[in-house]
Amino acid sequence: MSAPFLLFIMAGGSGERFWPLSRKNKPKHLLRLISPKTLLEETVQRLKPLAGKPADLLILTNHEQIPGVRKALPRFPKASLVAEPAKRDTAPAAALATALALRRHPDAILALLPADAVIGKHPIFRAQLAAAVRAAAASPSFVTLGIQPSYPATGFGYLHLGQKTLGQVRGGPFLRVKRFVEKPSLAKAKGYLRSGQYAWNAGIFVWKASTFLAEARRQQPALASFIEKFPRKGSFSRYLGREFPKLPKISVDYAIMEKARSVLAVKAAFPWDDVGSWTALPAHLPTDKRGNTVRGPVLSMENRNSLALAEGGRPIALLGTENLVVVDTPDALLVCPKDKVQDVKKLMPLLPQTVI
Amino acid sequence: MSAPFLLFIMAGGSGERFWPLSRKNKPKHLLRLISPKTLLEETVQRLKPLAGKPADLLILTNHEQIPGVRKALPRFPKASLVAEPAKRDTAPAAALATALALRRHPDAILALLPADAVIGKHPIFRAQLAAAVRAAAASPSFVTLGIQPSYPATGFGYLHLGQKTLGQVRGGPFLRVKRFVEKPSLAKAKGYLRSGQYAWNAGIFVWKASTFLAEARRQQPALASFIEKFPRKGSFSRYLGREFPKLPKISVDYAIMEKARSVLAVKAAFPWDDVGSWTALPAHLPTDKRGNTVRGPVLSMENRNSLALAEGGRPIALLGTENLVVVDTPDALLVCPKDKVQDVKKLMPLLPQTVI
Repeated sequence: MSAPFLLFIMAGGSGERFWPLSRKNKPKHLLRLISPKTLLEETVQRLKPLAGKPADLLILTNHEQIPGVRKALPRFPKASLVAEPAKRDTAPAAALATALALRRHPDAILALLPADAVIGKHPIFRAQLAAAVRAAAASPSFVTLGIQPSYPATGFGYLHLGQKTLGQVRGGPFLRVKRFVEKPSLAKAKGYLRSGQYAWNAGIFVWKASTFLAEARRQQPALASFIEKFPRKGSFSRYLGREFPKLPKISVDYAIMEKARSVLAVKAAFPWDDVGSWTALPAHLPTDKRGNTVRGPVLSMENRNSLALAEGGRPIALLGTENLVVVDTPDALLVCPKDKVQDVKKLMPLLPQTVI
Repeated sequence: MSAPFLLFIMAGGSGERFWPLSRKNKPKHLLRLISPKTLLEETVQRLKPLAGKPADLLILTNHEQIPGVRKALPRFPKASLVAEPAKRDTAPAAALATALALRRHPDAILALLPADAVIGKHPIFRAQLAAAVRAAAASPSFVTLGIQPSYPATGFGYLHLGQKTLGQVRGGPFLRVKRFVEKPSLAKAKGYLRSGQYAWNAGIFVWKASTFLAEARRQQPALASFIEKFPRKGSFSRYLGREFPKLPKISVDYAIMEKARSVLAVKAAFPWDDVGSWTALPAHLPTDKRGNTVRGPVLSMENRNSLALAEGGRPIALLGTENLVVVDTPDALLVCPKDKVQDVKKLMPLLPQTVI
């Protein structure tokens, strides 16, 4: 039996950025933002062809979101749906994924990917991910897919890439990651864009379970211990319920990747979008001549560059607006200019519990 | 028996300017715009003390609006609620009022008033209206209450007033109306305001039934004939149903007042507001330091001069807006800048029948 390759979709996260469509129990990946399918369904379908057998594709989520995930994916095997018993960051999720992979095989390779990105050109995406898997199998390296920046984004972390091309995969060079860079200032982001030596960190990582365990032993003994003591057979739910909540709230980038001995990146040759807020949506939806994006029964007249989603079952009369976001749902309504959508989370503490 | 004085409240009109709160069957006077009472209730209460007996206060409305009026005024005498069998303008309403007054007494005096204006200082209003009644009783004149303009309004008709004071009533001079002026341009309106010789036409008129009939005979034979043939006793509903729809669609100003032999005006010494659109509302409701007016569960942050009414039973999150109007109802939602509210009626043809 050759070493299996497991895919772990991280489907946790909160729903603040797409409120009122998203809620605590219905975060972004459970929304039908750009198609009749949820982003999670899109992600599962995109990854399925890479899984050797159905059981090789797993979803990490949390108890609150289990009903929503089951509803979105009614035929997804229950055994492949793992609920984290507490909200932690991505490092504990990566440790859990590694532990689950080690239950399968000591040489298992795994990929950890977010559930809520929008990705195009799926065949190229899969070919590049498969190449990342081969690279991770061949060396004790973490391998990531770095996204070519298209604008000086300040909302993403960056990967500072080496200049020596180690290989080429479907139009994307293989490079060494010299450094992980936190979300930069606009000035720095502009420099990164100009230099051509930086890629966006999309949070897509591939590693051998043994590579992660070795780095965890060196950098994060608590994570290493969690993996080592993880039950190799039988039920793990009691162990998970007891030990997982004790793990530190820390991202896998910060906990492991930034100081890892070897990280490689494939420069993505596929379109990728985090769809980080309402203003990212129009790029993925039909837009009229005046830049308006509407969905549902929106009666629009003399608007410019506005976004209106009528998901509340009632018509929206939208007249003479500019750069406005209007999102209606059956029980809550958001109205704010496009340049303020990042502040929606500030309203959360003011909202009635019933609509959060 | 001295000549009775009857008060007729005109409660017809359509609901376009306050859509989506107002609808075809729920026009402005049936809305609770500025208090927990409908404007019609406010009008009835304001006028009641002037009525010699309850039966002297009547409401003219139409069949579609009867249920709404009954709901707003459950104890209003049914016999005093007259439904016009077709939508006509104010001249037919004035003729109907005159005919109904003549059934009471050949020397009856009547006042015709809109149901949907906002009026303050009620004792002064009533004293001035009572003075208008005395003046109408003493001469074959129409008597109106002219409103002192506070800004160069282009949405009202004006009364060009004589300069000779004929009397004084609670701070308001009695003057002759030299001319009725249609809604003016802004330049003209500014001139009217500067001159001090013009008043807004609030559509409040008092006349002797015999005065109206004489003027109708001279100017509008169809109206005169309608009044003359109106049943003096017994049921008038068959007559009304047959004859009223034949009357011309014309305003009482245009049909009678503009060319009437004698029109007097009392300059109003009470606050008056037509409340003609959403933008007129903030003046009558509590407003925060940044000029925002909100009602219902509105979660407001960093807004300026916006108006948000949450009447849909769900919270509105309003963030970073300026000069915006948001009106939510259970089955329709309006979002438009303040300077576009006049255009809401343009949207009507696009709206589903169910929300008109």
